[in-house]
Amino acid sequence: MARDGRDSPSNVAGAHAAAPPAGAGIPGAGALPAVAAPPARERARRCGLVLGRLRPGPLNAITDVAGVRVGHVTLFAGEGSLREGHGPVRTGVTAILPHGDNLFREKVAAAVHVINAFGKPIGTTQIVELGVLETPIVLTNTLGMGAAFDGLVEHALGLNPEIGRSTGSVNPVAAECNDGALNDIRGRHVRPEHILAAIAGAAMGPVAEGVVGAGTGMSCYGWKGGIGTSSRRLVDGSEQPFPPYTVGVLVLANFGRPADLVVDGVRVGRTIRPLQDSTTVSVGTPGSCVIVVATDAPADARQLGRIARRVQNGLAYTGTFGQHGSGEFVLAFSTARRIAHWPSGPTASMRHVAEDGPLLDELFQAVAEATEEAVVNALFTADTVTGVDGHSRHGLPVQRVIDLLSQVNVASASPRSM
Amino acid sequence: MARDGRDSPSNVAGAHAAAPPAGAGIPGAGALPAVAAPPARERARRCGLVLGRLRPGPLNAITDVAGVRVGHVTLFAGEGSLREGHGPVRTGVTAILPHGDNLFREKVAAAVHVINAFGKPIGTTQIVELGVLETPIVLTNTLGMGAAFDGLVEHALGLNPEIGRSTGSVNPVAAECNDGALNDIRGRHVRPEHILAAIAGAAMGPVAEGVVGAGTGMSCYGWKGGIGTSSRRLVDGSEQPFPPYTVGVLVLANFGRPADLVVDGVRVGRTIRPLQDSTTVSVGTPGSCVIVVATDAPADARQLGRIARRVQNGLAYTGTFGQHGSGEFVLAFSTARRIAHWPSGPTASMRHVAEDGPLLDELFQAVAEATEEAVVNALFTADTVTGVDGHSRHGLPVQRVIDLLSQVNVASASPRSM
Amino acid sequence: MARDGRDSPSNVAGAHAAAPPAGAGIPGAGALPAVAAPPARERARRCGLVLGRLRPGPLNAITDVAGVRVGHVTLFAGEGSLREGHGPVRTGVTAILPHGDNLFREKVAAAVHVINAFGKPIGTTQIVELGVLETPIVLTNTLGMGAAFDGLVEHALGLNPEIGRSTGSVNPVAAECNDGALNDIRGRHVRPEHILAAIAGAAMGPVAEGVVGAGTGMSCYGWKGGIGTSSRRLVDGSEQPFPPYTVGVLVLANFGRPADLVVDGVRVGRTIRPLQDSTTVSVGTPGSCVIVVATDAPADARQLGRIARRVQNGLAYTGTFGQHGSGEFVLAFSTARRIAHWPSGPTASMRHVAEDGPLLDELFQAVAEATEEAVVNALFTADTVTGVDGHSRHGLPVQRVIDLLSQVNVASASPRSM
Amino acid sequence: MARDGRDSPSNVAGAHAAAPPAGAGIPGAGALPAVAAPPARERARRCGLVLGRLRPGPLNAITDVAGVRVGHVTLFAGEGSLREGHGPVRTGVTAILPHGDNLFREKVAAAVHVINAFGKPIGTTQIVELGVLETPIVLTNTLGMGAAFDGLVEHALGLNPEIGRSTGSVNPVAAECNDGALNDIRGRHVRPEHILAAIAGAAMGPVAEGVVGAGTGMSCYGWKGGIGTSSRRLVDGSEQPFPPYTVGVLVLANFGRPADLVVDGVRVGRTIRPLQDSTTVSVGTPGSCVIVVATDAPADARQLGRIARRVQNGLAYTGTFGQHGSGEFVLAFSTARRIAHWPSGPTASMRHVAEDGPLLDELFQAVAEATEEAVVNALFTADTVTGVDGHSRHGLPVQRVIDLLSQVNVASASPRSM
Repeated sequence: MARDGRDSPSNVAGAHAAAPPAGAGIPGAGALPAVAAPPARERARRCGLVLGRLRPGPLNAITDVAGVRVGHVTLFAGEGSLREGHGPVRTGVTAILPHGDNLFREKVAAAVHVINAFGKPIGTTQIVELGVLETPIVLTNTLGMGAAFDGLVEHALGLNPEIGRSTGSVNPVAAECNDGALNDIRGRHVRPEHILAAIAGAAMGPVAEGVVGAGTGMSCYGWKGGIGTSSRRLVDGSEQPFPPYTVGVLVLANFGRPADLVVDGVRVGRTIRPLQDSTTVSVGTPGSCVIVVATDAPADARQLGRIARRVQNGLAYTGTFGQHGSGEFVLAFSTARRIAHWPSGPTASMRHVAEDGPLLDELFQAVAEATEEAVVNALFTADTVTGVDGHSRHGLPVQRVIDLLSQVNVASASPRSM
Repeated sequence: MARDGRDSPSNVAGAHAAAPPAGAGIPGAGALPAVAAPPARERARRCGLVLGRLRPGPLNAITDVAGVRVGHVTLFAGEGSLREGHGPVRTGVTAILPHGDNLFREKVAAAVHVINAFGKPIGTTQIVELGVLETPIVLTNTLGMGAAFDGLVEHALGLNPEIGRSTGSVNPVAAECNDGALNDIRGRHVRPEHILAAIAGAAMGPVAEGVVGAGTGMSCYGWKGGIGTSSRRLVDGSEQPFPPYTVGVLVLANFGRPADLVVDGVRVGRTIRPLQDSTTVSVGTPGSCVIVVATDAPADARQLGRIARRVQNGLAYTGTFGQHGSGEFVLAFSTARRIAHWPSGPTASMRHVAEDGPLLDELFQAVAEATEEAVVNALFTADTVTGVDGHSRHGLPVQRVIDLLSQVNVASASPRSM
Repeated sequence: MARDGRDSPSNVAGAHAAAPPAGAGIPGAGALPAVAAPPARERARRCGLVLGRLRPGPLNAITDVAGVRVGHVTLFAGEGSLREGHGPVRTGVTAILPHGDNLFREKVAAAVHVINAFGKPIGTTQIVELGVLETPIVLTNTLGMGAAFDGLVEHALGLNPEIGRSTGSVNPVAAECNDGALNDIRGRHVRPEHILAAIAGAAMGPVAEGVVGAGTGMSCYGWKGGIGTSSRRLVDGSEQPFPPYTVGVLVLANFGRPADLVVDGVRVGRTIRPLQDSTTVSVGTPGSCVIVVATDAPADARQLGRIARRVQNGLAYTGTFGQHGSGEFVLAFSTARRIAHWPSGPTASMRHVAEDGPLLDELFQAVAEATEEAVVNALFTADTVTGVDGHSRHGLPVQRVIDLLSQVNVASASPRSM
Repeated sequence: MARDGRDSPSNVAGAHAAAPPAGAGIPGAGALPAVAAPPARERARRCGLVLGRLRPGPLNAITDVAGVRVGHVTLFAGEGSLREGHGPVRTGVTAILPHGDNLFREKVAAAVHVINAFGKPIGTTQIVELGVLETPIVLTNTLGMGAAFDGLVEHALGLNPEIGRSTGSVNPVAAECNDGALNDIRGRHVRPEHILAAIAGAAMGPVAEGVVGAGTGMSCYGWKGGIGTSSRRLVDGSEQPFPPYTVGVLVLANFGRPADLVVDGVRVGRTIRPLQDSTTVSVGTPGSCVIVVATDAPADARQLGRIARRVQNGLAYTGTFGQHGSGEFVLAFSTARRIAHWPSGPTASMRHVAEDGPLLDELFQAVAEATEEAVVNALFTADTVTGVDGHSRHGLPVQRVIDLLSQVNVASASPRSM
């Protein structure tokens, strides 16, 4: 079933799409009983957790960067034994748009950073060469990259009749994680129409997290993972004033081993572990993580690359050492300027961030902090999902985590954030 | 119409696939009249041209590297005005297989080199990280990358039931050029079944060149381009004997401006230019080039990268300076060893090329020379094609080129090869 | 004064060199009064801290990797006001050798990973191309890179009369941090003879840490930093047994802002901050970090690069987000095989790590953990140093840190290591 | 002897420095008899050769880019048998300055491209991260990199008292080739004072080529090589007018095998080969090439990288396939804007090249053509030099080359340039 509504205060409507109805939308799954995906639970800050030094924007989401839109299509249908091509289906699509206009004609500066290239993103090489993003960014499961390509092409061709005729082609950008632990991934239930629906439904405002969109079937540190987001607003603590730029991060979190989980510095994974029995998914399933970074600071492509490289610190704050099988890719863009597909002249003037410590360091810290919190949000909001063969990935027991963190913080005369 | 046979002496059967029949194979083009693609003309060496110092293998093709297979599916149907989604269709698929066994289970060492990342290859990032190729390499048109992904996934899932269940996913590798000058590229006529057919039909032996497979709608230096191949056998001229390793190159040639064409050192493009009138395609159409390199020398991933970086020299020998819009990607692999998906132990012993001048330099020269000759072969073999809106891309007037080269060579007391 | 002895149990003799006497060794500083550098304090594990899951080797040092040698030359002379070229001198040299034989003739596999390229290492580009290390690795201050180059060349020429005649040149490898906060860095007191002395004095066994060698004038998180080291021994917890390989890390730690310091997950920097008054160095001074990784696992150059990329996680565990001005470079090598300068044949067989999860993940976790502990060791062992203009960089108040950590750990029913 | 004057029409004074007198300037060589370096011969265009499509600037030199300065110090002393440390000395230094002001305070946008990283440049990693050049670029022999570092530091410290105190350090940029075939390279005759002299003597205007500066002892395609330069002025042939930007190239040419030499497309190396007897240097000596690219087009760091990547095409036009031992590095900068060390605000506005075909393609073609001509100029201008042990590297027999090219061109009804 496609989820198109949320009632949690932090996840109200808006930033996810109405997906096609389950029967029609899931090829070969016409007869599958619709199953309700679990609603999102509370985010970390609502549970009292305050991570990092910088403050989030009003939504504490990637959509705090003005103009950025997020859309989800959740594919959640069928139960019981895995029948390849029939389900159970636990997957989806998440689309991130830097702005609501024609991205092909008005590109944005962008960069890619590869932490661990064990993954199958598309469109990243051209970003490295040209420093621009010209389509929405699509996240979905690994075997859905073909559908992502086709859906993004469909979208771009529809808006731009000149593509492939007078002006060359378009560079679709998508990245993936493997949700095969819960989802009939070999059934390839993501289709181009789901990509188009996620883009069409993309909206500003609050962003649904947890078991939604591309995050539907994902796992993180042995718990249910998925979509998480967070943001940071820059503080001007220096002599040199700068505008209160925002950095927003959205993660598709599908990585990590249970024992390694750290929340707010506390090695939660040492005491709280997912149950491992015949009803649960093997914890060893390979994972990955895709991290999308947005900012309204006028960083150019090279500077966006520098910002993107600090995402690894944010991931590490949550305990991971970066597993072999965890493909980790960062896609970063700036909304500060639009780069015309047909430039009006041979040269152009553009504003960019001065290569100076204070502002850059704020941007760097912001992205590291927002990445950490986005991962924690994915863990906090994602409730238990039962998928293929009736196996479950449990939601992180948030109250136990909070209790553990509280003990620590009281005792230590509050050295940390809570 | 899908071409599945060639009668030119240098292009006899074998290394290209029987494609689906035109009507069935081209979605939405059921009523399109089948059109015969032009047969391949003579290759450069058959015309008396001897490029470079090293000698080719017996086939002068990438298939001189033992075990390598090539398959083509040519989609050539419809004539006249462009009707998006209906044609005319001038495109296709070329698949290159390092060996005939299960590539996912028996991977080969591989590397990627990006000359100009203005392009949309898939699967290249993982090759950089892990240094292996685990699917066939597919070449097709730019907007066919989704179909390429899906076809390669279909192929891998069919052979490997464990993918997406017990062992993670698979990394499909494909690269593209834009054939929109002749082909209804927006119609996206390449489908996953064409990918599967190209793989299924891949064979050892002679390789069809010119207007075939992925090369069907491509252009090169303003002339008709497409598929070209060549090989070099290493000579042991050093004190340190080594086996007669082979380097094979296959190009999908779709790059270059008419004025820049150089053949065997002669600036052909200064005197011989394609006719530019209302019946011809604009010469300014953006291009690209994909180059696949195979060798049986036991080069490891790092060394394959070094070999791949010399491809740019080979391209430059044909006159190009590397246009902004020409995405150029090299995919290189070695057949010398197979890398098990499930290693039999935590470490393994493997043979590799010693980092020493003589053998490495031979490999480097071989790849530069074979690249040059592969491009020239694409130009020599590709005859005129008329495509969308009745516009034509003319075949290089080979006899005029030969005449020009002969004059030069006689006069200069044979400073060059002929 | 050059320090050549340590009596701390964890820092007994051995792994640092007898440096030239102060007068002769420090150009232009002949009349400077010799000043005793502070002896190293206790390492983290001696203070009860147990970081990470894996166990260290017997020395908990990079020298746990068999054959690896470390040598220090400490330049510590003069007091009071800065007189450029005269001091005070608070700097030095640290040399790391993969083995005790002729490195030029018997190279080792090596890789470089650049976390933040705001720095001036030498020799790193060639390592990327050829995948080998052929000189000792030298660490010293930023403006000493010329001396490092010259010293390493002197060393290599002395051992290899064929360099520059029959066999090309040599690739000296060195990296640096800026110790200008305490040291008369503009006076360039490091000379080629100090490089040679550090190499000559390199030894197996315990490694001196803290205010020693290249670490003499360095700062970390606003406290006195310097040299730290740690190691991890791999556990075979998988179905596939592998030998108990070792990963050793040595850091030259000169990075981080006070507020960001995290020790064993506890945000120490939020409560314990260095005093900031007229007697202390400005905390804003730019820093950097060089990390040397050694292993006896037979990782090839590509795999060493993958190992090196996990160092960033280890740094992040100590709280940093990666400052703009903090150039961070990883140099990794494997002692498992020696690569002959003159190979005995055109190809060779070598053992390498299979690209499989269990062993790779152990290596990755080992390097992240050892990096974290090496940084913490640098902070724990480095005592207060007063340098130029009488300004001080204080040693981390270890007891206060331990007290804070103990509170937290008691309260939390020991979720962490102590 | 240090050469400080030239009387060839194409090499008049100006762009090279007065070097220290031979006795003083060459350490340990006080008693060496001064030897006259051969004067430069005619450049290629003066011999009637017209390479490429675009026209050079008035000087056909890198100094056609306004503000760029070049300075040479030539060290040429001693004859006869090699006595390490005593000579014969056949080496030198070449310095390139983007402008005549304080480069540390007014940096320029810069990029590095590595064609073959078998070499020992310094300062390149930081350019990749920050995209700026803040010192002159120094070229010299391989073992002189320590002196280059020290000389550049000396120069920067002298001008900027804040370095190492209030503002961190400086990033010296230098690159090298191995001139050991003719020069007592192990004697390390290049000293920091030579670096300073080359910088001090740098001037706008004509640039001395051939056996001068860093080129003094270099070889190219088995002939005497060295310094060459060329430039191209952009033509506005497009619909979109742009200013007549200039691209200038200076090469330190020390690469290539005799058989591979191509001049203006003619495979000269097949008929004209250097004599090989007991009086000549072995042709197999390893080489390298450093290429410095300047432009006044407002290319940013990423775009400069793209420009730099086309240098490989220009080198390939001269016949090379890129030997294993030939370290090839491109350093590119734009003079169009100055980037303040202390920015006046957190963001700044800058003009840059629009990512559009016409202007970029002109820049790309310009750099490829100018690189080709710079290498040919190095070969044409460099006369025979006799060096260590009385061995000689002969100057290319220009008249024979011209005769060969003339034959070809007459016969072919002028398909090429002459």
